[in-house]
Amino acid sequence: MEATVNGLLNGSNVLFLMLGAVMVFAMHAGFAFLEVGTVTTKSQVNAFSKILTDWAVSTVIYFLIGYPLAYGTHFLHPAGALLGNSQGFELVRFFFLLCFAACIPAIISGGIAERARFYPQVLAGALFVGLTYPLFESLIWGQHSQWLQSMFERLGGAQFHDFAGSVVVHSMGGWLALPAVLFLGARQGRYVHGRSQAIPVSNIPFLALGSWILAVGWFGFNVMSAQQVTGISGLVAVNSLMALVGGVLFALVAGRNDPGFLHNGALAGLIAICAGSDIVHPLAAFFMGGFGSLIFVYGFKWEQEKLKIDDVLGVWPLHGVIGTWGGIAAGIFGQPLFGGMGGVTFISQLGGSLLAVAYALLNGFVIYGIIRKVFGMRLTAEQEFSGPDLAIHSINAYPEERVK
Amino acid sequence: MEATVNGLLNGSNVLFLMLGAVMVFAMHAGFAFLEVGTVTTKSQVNAFSKILTDWAVSTVIYFLIGYPLAYGTHFLHPAGALLGNSQGFELVRFFFLLCFAACIPAIISGGIAERARFYPQVLAGALFVGLTYPLFESLIWGQHSQWLQSMFERLGGAQFHDFAGSVVVHSMGGWLALPAVLFLGARQGRYVHGRSQAIPVSNIPFLALGSWILAVGWFGFNVMSAQQVTGISGLVAVNSLMALVGGVLFALVAGRNDPGFLHNGALAGLIAICAGSDIVHPLAAFFMGGFGSLIFVYGFKWEQEKLKIDDVLGVWPLHGVIGTWGGIAAGIFGQPLFGGMGGVTFISQLGGSLLAVAYALLNGFVIYGIIRKVFGMRLTAEQEFSGPDLAIHSINAYPEERVK
Amino acid sequence: MEATVNGLLNGSNVLFLMLGAVMVFAMHAGFAFLEVGTVTTKSQVNAFSKILTDWAVSTVIYFLIGYPLAYGTHFLHPAGALLGNSQGFELVRFFFLLCFAACIPAIISGGIAERARFYPQVLAGALFVGLTYPLFESLIWGQHSQWLQSMFERLGGAQFHDFAGSVVVHSMGGWLALPAVLFLGARQGRYVHGRSQAIPVSNIPFLALGSWILAVGWFGFNVMSAQQVTGISGLVAVNSLMALVGGVLFALVAGRNDPGFLHNGALAGLIAICAGSDIVHPLAAFFMGGFGSLIFVYGFKWEQEKLKIDDVLGVWPLHGVIGTWGGIAAGIFGQPLFGGMGGVTFISQLGGSLLAVAYALLNGFVIYGIIRKVFGMRLTAEQEFSGPDLAIHSINAYPEERVK
Repeated sequence: MEATVNGLLNGSNVLFLMLGAVMVFAMHAGFAFLEVGTVTTKSQVNAFSKILTDWAVSTVIYFLIGYPLAYGTHFLHPAGALLGNSQGFELVRFFFLLCFAACIPAIISGGIAERARFYPQVLAGALFVGLTYPLFESLIWGQHSQWLQSMFERLGGAQFHDFAGSVVVHSMGGWLALPAVLFLGARQGRYVHGRSQAIPVSNIPFLALGSWILAVGWFGFNVMSAQQVTGISGLVAVNSLMALVGGVLFALVAGRNDPGFLHNGALAGLIAICAGSDIVHPLAAFFMGGFGSLIFVYGFKWEQEKLKIDDVLGVWPLHGVIGTWGGIAAGIFGQPLFGGMGGVTFISQLGGSLLAVAYALLNGFVIYGIIRKVFGMRLTAEQEFSGPDLAIHSINAYPEERVK
Repeated sequence: MEATVNGLLNGSNVLFLMLGAVMVFAMHAGFAFLEVGTVTTKSQVNAFSKILTDWAVSTVIYFLIGYPLAYGTHFLHPAGALLGNSQGFELVRFFFLLCFAACIPAIISGGIAERARFYPQVLAGALFVGLTYPLFESLIWGQHSQWLQSMFERLGGAQFHDFAGSVVVHSMGGWLALPAVLFLGARQGRYVHGRSQAIPVSNIPFLALGSWILAVGWFGFNVMSAQQVTGISGLVAVNSLMALVGGVLFALVAGRNDPGFLHNGALAGLIAICAGSDIVHPLAAFFMGGFGSLIFVYGFKWEQEKLKIDDVLGVWPLHGVIGTWGGIAAGIFGQPLFGGMGGVTFISQLGGSLLAVAYALLNGFVIYGIIRKVFGMRLTAEQEFSGPDLAIHSINAYPEERVK
Repeated sequence: MEATVNGLLNGSNVLFLMLGAVMVFAMHAGFAFLEVGTVTTKSQVNAFSKILTDWAVSTVIYFLIGYPLAYGTHFLHPAGALLGNSQGFELVRFFFLLCFAACIPAIISGGIAERARFYPQVLAGALFVGLTYPLFESLIWGQHSQWLQSMFERLGGAQFHDFAGSVVVHSMGGWLALPAVLFLGARQGRYVHGRSQAIPVSNIPFLALGSWILAVGWFGFNVMSAQQVTGISGLVAVNSLMALVGGVLFALVAGRNDPGFLHNGALAGLIAICAGSDIVHPLAAFFMGGFGSLIFVYGFKWEQEKLKIDDVLGVWPLHGVIGTWGGIAAGIFGQPLFGGMGGVTFISQLGGSLLAVAYALLNGFVIYGIIRKVFGMRLTAEQEFSGPDLAIHSINAYPEERVK
């Protein structure tokens, strides 16, 4: 009887986290289609290839270096030992957390689209997933979390709370992308004589498909962050839903029915809620998501029109700034005053969120700075003109059509 | 030990219903792509935007009004109280049932496509999801189900049985759509001098994608209607499969290899089986689905060619009539005579199914009648000519292409 | 208490296998999109229609004949008896294994694309799923597995090990496709005066979508092959992941950044790992997948350019040869020497894998030989020129566009 219960508990936990991993793995198809729909047609093949290649490189490097760095365990034992007596729970835990780590290059990919060289960006992704990300991860979720906790306690704050990665994943990715976008410079024709000239997106259905895939998979991202089926919380699911919905509705109004803002608004809401999804009230989640959406709509316009930064998918405002907002907002709306479950402090949330920004900018400027010097980051003008699909992959997205 | 078992039971139930909710949430992407593929290119952005906006509005209104109306519980407690000691099971139950409620505007959307104004249709959806639907839901699945049951008992029938919503969801949506389609009138150029002139669909791959997404998610719709993992039934899964397959094969023959009928045939079968999926034999399910498909193929042609009703996706025959068929058929094939598990009566199934038709028509004519008077339902002729994408969203589905 | 645990165990097992079934069902949409993206535009509707029709026919025939043949149980009892006291576990087991069986026509479909007649190929699929496949299945996983086991034991080998179907499913499908492709001959214009002239693929985004859907669903294919939640293994999940990733990276280099090789490389890796996914080390899985990818890249070129076999999606090297490789490789990398868990022998793995090749070729040549004589397999030259979409389905994939 006890053996049955233990077997069922082990099996259910492995299943739980495996399902989460698969759902977040599927999100990478969402990243791909979101980028494919948003870039011009001559960069679609490149978008698919970057996402899949980055995924593959991330897996290898996080398996060998990143995960051991963050959690202190490695996988260089025989298969039988890896399986252990918990049916390989640690292995699916690696899979699940890899899916988070691999979001870093996937997020950056959307910012640097259409003009970056292929292998230098793969290399940068590998360094982030192998070193930059797991070192920060170890501070928040991993083997060095005690250290950060004691630092915040000395400041009179609670432990920094980031349930599902507004800060650890999204803000990290978005703020790492900013230096890359700045180093690369704008696409040909994006700003002419100092005037912004929008480059039209290629395919709204693919953009929408990407957003839908991401939104669906996000429930695995957030809910399975409990990591044990006995720790699952229906509150996380409904808060994710409410933030998504808040993001959609605020984007609808602020973005004046624009389908791009609408479908990115869902993502904006979801990014804003990750950190606090287990502790805030659903109505608070709605407004946290809604405000995230306003950050995206106005931040995107400000970035692109005023700052003249050609961040193609707007990943800096979307993942970077909203991720930071999500970390801070958990310290506000998580309070019992707003119907939240408490246990968080504003000071720790602010501190942890800003720490991530500084750490990401530092890593981004240094690593991209070196890569730029050593390898170069940008396609030649001719390559960019013909497009990365032809220049890098020797094919375009619709070969039959182009032949005719 | 007992604590472990209870924790596992709670966690498994929340996981079960959360997975169901996510699968049905994903179906809304299916609704979107089915419509996008079926309408003309100038209405694709509008299709995506309607589905996502309706989803968002439905969430808010069903959270605040609909669910409390149907089940008598509300969510205006602090987050900790919402979580309770069942790990937020009531919250995921709301999420799961919301996914059903939100099908109402998603179904209607396909009927009124290409010429409806945006906000009036959002308003109608909100009224249906906030009032019309949950009031009927409360009679069948919710806090007033005793009342309806005693009425049927007085007529000598068993309780009305609608396991997964052939009647409550699909027929409700399809019969509510009929008044809207009638009030709106046909699209420009659909019937010329009384002659039907088919408007070609834009994109079979997107239509097929929509059908596939819907079919896959439907297993969450039907199987997770058990609402508890201990109540799961493999029979529901296989009956859904067999009805889908029956729908495909009958559509293949009746529709003469047409891919539109083929992919809608899968849906026809699935709509027909929802109500009786837990009580009929798999071979009966096959024929229930197959007959559903015949209703669609011939009903669609009759509706469009003879009645000259421009119901773009054929949602009245598909969801409305087949939903009614599903409710009634459960009263036939659910009998032990046909290998079914019994416990249903023809009279109750007929009564409940027809009640839904009358209730939906009444609500549809009244609500759309008022909205039409007060706000107007249809785009201007100029707007319709340029298409809802440009008129409402100021963009079309392939902006780069149109620029060239 | 014991009743609760038993109920939970039963429910969890049904849920586990149902989720696996749904994930593998979804893979059939992946087969469809992979083919749609790879064929020319005039064959896209046909690709969708074949996959869905084959699925439907497979379901009926495997329900009535195939599953009973392989496992000795049938479903011609009343619904209540089918449900039994394990909540219909046998029914979802049928559903799960059907999803495997139905891969046979889906695999073949990609090889014979663009020039095969519709109903003869449906008939061939029905014969494979009703007879050819379940007879072999019964030897490996089913009611006659003792018989094969004792044969291998006499040869001094262990039981033939094919955890998730590298051999039973993929190699069977791929080697059955070879005779069909040979009988059919190449598409018009594929080889001109003995010179190979590549026919450009139509749509890389749909090809990539297909690959992503397949890759995501594959985790259900492999992990749920445990068939019981208490038998789940995190090792299977991570080995699938590592093989996928190995496949991608080797294809990237060998295929010189080509997106077609890249996205098929993921599948190559996954096909290679099915058989041994429960017993090899993740690093071995990486190289097993990587080598699978090399087989595809070089095998595809050799098949198409040297052998001049117009196997449109390359299903013979992809599923056939790599499936065989996967069966054999499990006998190498499954050994403790390579960090594997042992219990397999090279001789049995080689024997079982080659047995499948011989059996598939025999069945393929006989069944397609008869069908070719009796019905004819190929479209007329005029039909092929206008394309199967118009010739068979009287519509093309983008009807609105063609009208203009």
